Amino acid sequence: MGQINMELMRSDAPIGVFDSGVGGLTVVREIMRQIPNEKIIYFGDTARVPYGSKSQETVTRFSEQIVRFLRTFQVKTIVVACNTASAYALETLEKNIDIPIIGVVKPGAKAAAEVTRNKKIGVIATEATIGSKIYSQYIHQLSSDVEIYGKACPLFVPLVEEGLLQDPVTDEIARRYLAELIDIDIDTLILGCTHYPLIRSTLQRIMGENVTLVNPAYETALELKRLLGSMKMLNEETPGLGSDRYRFYVSDKADKFVHFANSIIKYGILSAKTVQIEKY
Amino acid sequence: MGQINMELMRSDAPIGVFDSGVGGLTVVREIMRQIPNEKIIYFGDTARVPYGSKSQETVTRFSEQIVRFLRTFQVKTIVVACNTASAYALETLEKNIDIPIIGVVKPGAKAAAEVTRNKKIGVIATEATIGSKIYSQYIHQLSSDVEIYGKACPLFVPLVEEGLLQDPVTDEIARRYLAELIDIDIDTLILGCTHYPLIRSTLQRIMGENVTLVNPAYETALELKRLLGSMKMLNEETPGLGSDRYRFYVSDKADKFVHFANSIIKYGILSAKTVQIEKY
Repeated sequence: MGQINMELMRSDAPIGVFDSGVGGLTVVREIMRQIPNEKIIYFGDTARVPYGSKSQETVTRFSEQIVRFLRTFQVKTIVVACNTASAYALETLEKNIDIPIIGVVKPGAKAAAEVTRNKKIGVIATEATIGSKIYSQYIHQLSSDVEIYGKACPLFVPLVEEGLLQDPVTDEIARRYLAELIDIDIDTLILGCTHYPLIRSTLQRIMGENVTLVNPAYETALELKRLLGSMKMLNEETPGLGSDRYRFYVSDKADKFVHFANSIIKYGILSAKTVQIEKY
Repeated sequence: MGQINMELMRSDAPIGVFDSGVGGLTVVREIMRQIPNEKIIYFGDTARVPYGSKSQETVTRFSEQIVRFLRTFQVKTIVVACNTASAYALETLEKNIDIPIIGVVKPGAKAAAEVTRNKKIGVIATEATIGSKIYSQYIHQLSSDVEIYGKACPLFVPLVEEGLLQDPVTDEIARRYLAELIDIDIDTLILGCTHYPLIRSTLQRIMGENVTLVNPAYETALELKRLLGSMKMLNEETPGLGSDRYRFYVSDKADKFVHFANSIIKYGILSAKTVQIEKY
């Protein structure tokens, strides 16, 4: 991480969170649960979603624009709530920033390394995240004798976005994607894309009850709480329930986003604003 | 269409063709077959694909950038080889351009109106194209007593891009999407997304042999030939087989595009170049 400038940070400032679209809301949901006093500015890049099939150069360029946008709100920290952006862009973003920035990959990797008993961990994610081998790198830094098996699952995101959360087609696709991980006898499976917690019950049923599913969204909120606590940057006052507590921005039109967001977060997202993100 | 300035057009100039990604290559393939003397500049917006789930404002803004890019090649005409962009952006593009520009919707609508006998036409396409009701509008201009039934099929594009062209999962999803069109007893089905010709045999099998499938890619190449012929703008000389006969540009990295493109066009696409399209 670049040099952190504590003077730029105020404990009552909001946390910036971004994702390629709606998936990062599973991270927002965990932050809301674990540190309910925090204000959040969320950006979903709905005009350019998805990131998981695109290149490192493109995902990094998009992420840099979003970080510039989030910083206009004087956020105290940024959460990259997208596995693909965490895998491809976080290292570059860290070098050029003077507030803390965390991704979802490292917390997920850490939890999986702690949980596994037979030292066989599976990772399911987008093509980009799997191709980057980033989960392997992080897990091997913590525990060099673990074997990691990655499997790209490109159809899960469209299936989730179509609402087929409990459906024979999703079951069939999941069985195909997971077959080799079952054969290998992994005991821990990282849900390496923020959409996947939404089909958690399907994945658990197919993997069997003996496999522990690790949700990086949950681990990331925990890590964020720890980080802000260690810097004495947790917000100590409960903000009012006004419209500036949680603010949502998207790059495409807001209506569809609001509909999907309300199905993930029970808080009740009343509105989101559109931003021409390529101007940042 | 805006005022056409014939002085801007040279018969040996290339044709500009664009799409949100790779689907428009099914249109390029038809142009190559039907008017093989023409040079083509293709642009695929692979950094921002797909368009079919995005808003009219966003798709129009992206399309305008692409038209500005294509015009830097002094193209003699532009083909919007994407149903969503044709549905959402063509009218705006036409108003501001002084060379001919055609989309895939009108030629597909015309062919369907000519083919139907029982006056019941189905349209399958993206959410955006179906929501725009553009096929209904064009068909009703030609034949007011036809009934048109639209069905959005958002999973077809990811299934095609995953290569599941002949697969039980694609069959199952197709059966669900097409069930109501079969019940209604349509006799003509418009493949209203440029990816769909790639699962044509699955669609034909499920609809039955008595339903005529209309491929707007084919009809558009035919319309383009007619248009250029009427303006005496067909290229009369066979261009050499050098690298400038067919040129491909994309907004994301080129390697994945080239791989997929070569599976659609047997010509052998050797290379594609990356363009930062938001700068246009």
